[in-house]
Amino acid sequence: MILTVTLNTALDITYRVRSLRPHASHRVSEVTERPGGKGVNVARVLAALGHQVTVTGFTGGATGRVVQERLAAVPGVVDALVPVSGATRRTIAVVDEQTGDTTQLNEPGPMVTPAEWSAFQEAYEDLLPSASAVALCGSLPPGVPVGAYAVLVRTARAAGVPVLLDTSGEALRRGVAARPDIIKPNADELAELTGSHEPLRATQDARRRGAGAVVASLGPEGLLAATREGRWRATPPTSVRGNPTGAGDSAVAGLLSGLVEHLPWPDRLARAVALSAATVSAPVAGEFERGVYEELLGRVTVSGEVSAA
Amino acid sequence: MILTVTLNTALDITYRVRSLRPHASHRVSEVTERPGGKGVNVARVLAALGHQVTVTGFTGGATGRVVQERLAAVPGVVDALVPVSGATRRTIAVVDEQTGDTTQLNEPGPMVTPAEWSAFQEAYEDLLPSASAVALCGSLPPGVPVGAYAVLVRTARAAGVPVLLDTSGEALRRGVAARPDIIKPNADELAELTGSHEPLRATQDARRRGAGAVVASLGPEGLLAATREGRWRATPPTSVRGNPTGAGDSAVAGLLSGLVEHLPWPDRLARAVALSAATVSAPVAGEFERGVYEELLGRVTVSGEVSAA
Repeated sequence: MILTVTLNTALDITYRVRSLRPHASHRVSEVTERPGGKGVNVARVLAALGHQVTVTGFTGGATGRVVQERLAAVPGVVDALVPVSGATRRTIAVVDEQTGDTTQLNEPGPMVTPAEWSAFQEAYEDLLPSASAVALCGSLPPGVPVGAYAVLVRTARAAGVPVLLDTSGEALRRGVAARPDIIKPNADELAELTGSHEPLRATQDARRRGAGAVVASLGPEGLLAATREGRWRATPPTSVRGNPTGAGDSAVAGLLSGLVEHLPWPDRLARAVALSAATVSAPVAGEFERGVYEELLGRVTVSGEVSAA
Repeated sequence: MILTVTLNTALDITYRVRSLRPHASHRVSEVTERPGGKGVNVARVLAALGHQVTVTGFTGGATGRVVQERLAAVPGVVDALVPVSGATRRTIAVVDEQTGDTTQLNEPGPMVTPAEWSAFQEAYEDLLPSASAVALCGSLPPGVPVGAYAVLVRTARAAGVPVLLDTSGEALRRGVAARPDIIKPNADELAELTGSHEPLRATQDARRRGAGAVVASLGPEGLLAATREGRWRATPPTSVRGNPTGAGDSAVAGLLSGLVEHLPWPDRLARAVALSAATVSAPVAGEFERGVYEELLGRVTVSGEVSAA
């Protein structure tokens, strides 16, 4: 199975309102809910691609119960979340029907105690021997040490399990130093990590900092990859309009599924780009449209050079 | 016991954010939750005044479970909510820390089926014989007929239980025609009911439409009452600054407790005004400050005339 780690799981709630105006009272016309947090989104896409996935991270309180009830209904996804005394966070996306704009309200997440963090590390270590790959995704809830991902990367490497890290800021900086196999920053995260706004230079720099492969997601321009085997740019055939929520998580699922299927890098990148674009174009945020994915897959352009070494 | 009916119960969630800007992403710095809906708020104040209270209405889904867990922790309040298949609504108050303004997002509430509405009416009829008074409070969830309060007023009157109605719009218009003992509209609700923006005239008109007594809440100006026994105006001694959320519900609790304690109208009105002001001044929305209440109680001015009849 593929293991995805979401330390700050969430219940993602979407509200539709006619027009959001600060200081006013709004009647919500439509409420939708789904389990979220980046690793949970990655797991859902992997399961839709036919992979067996186990989800771990933290769950707590009434919101955690809802997340777990909803996860139980997703075929191919096994729930191995670790209980905490605090409450799983909600995120609220308020969609303004007049402008189409989304306003986001994100709860901070539960305060995780040192004992809970230790319990998680034990559960994680127990899951690794069954995992063909692991993805470490998203922000850290309060109480989890900022070096958490570095610890989890080292444990995975010691177990011989390939590890992908998708986070930002100081958690990414520390995690990269522990030498994950793949990181997937977006342009802002990459610039924050390396100090360079020039993606080609920044991906090379991020490799020097410890990442085995760097796959930078550049929005509508696709992916830029710097790996041991070579450097590639993968570009969608057309500009896709829609909601970019979850596009990065779909790219992670594409990269991980390609890794465990032993696809060459250009094929992994093409899959990641096609999944991303099919997520942007989907009517429901974070889902991907299978027909769009299959249609785009053969039309992604991958150009690059294979390393001489 | 006193019975309060909240057909559209809620989990009231308050978010604090630094500054609310449409189309931006916000980190919520503080999350608070409490069971809500007007009748639930009334029940909490009645319990704090030492009365035994039973809460009924609808509950459903994960949010309903949270509301019930929280209610179980309130001494003096008995939960007699009726289960529905839909989910109890959330309301979200987003407090902007820079301006102090609140932006409100209200979910619509569960879709109540005809069978669920019938089940509620049976439960309500079973509760009435033990009730010394009943308060019917707030909006109607989807699926409940707009004449619902008229039905519930008639049932209470047939059982000989005094009934207070606190709602708005068409539900109030229909309910008043069923001759509730007391209604407690605010200035806007009273104007919508009667077509008159002149409170003295409008309270008299609302009595002619069927209400036994009309107690209009006029914000910082206090209460204006038109009753069978006479007409009074009750005014707080000082202008109180703070959050008016729940002030109307505290006034209802003051009126109801005064009714079951057989206080004369001026004493009921003084209690209602003091509770309202002590709710506005409290740091937590919807709670009242006991010290402020007791200090204000003797200083409320009640002026008026007793009817000759």
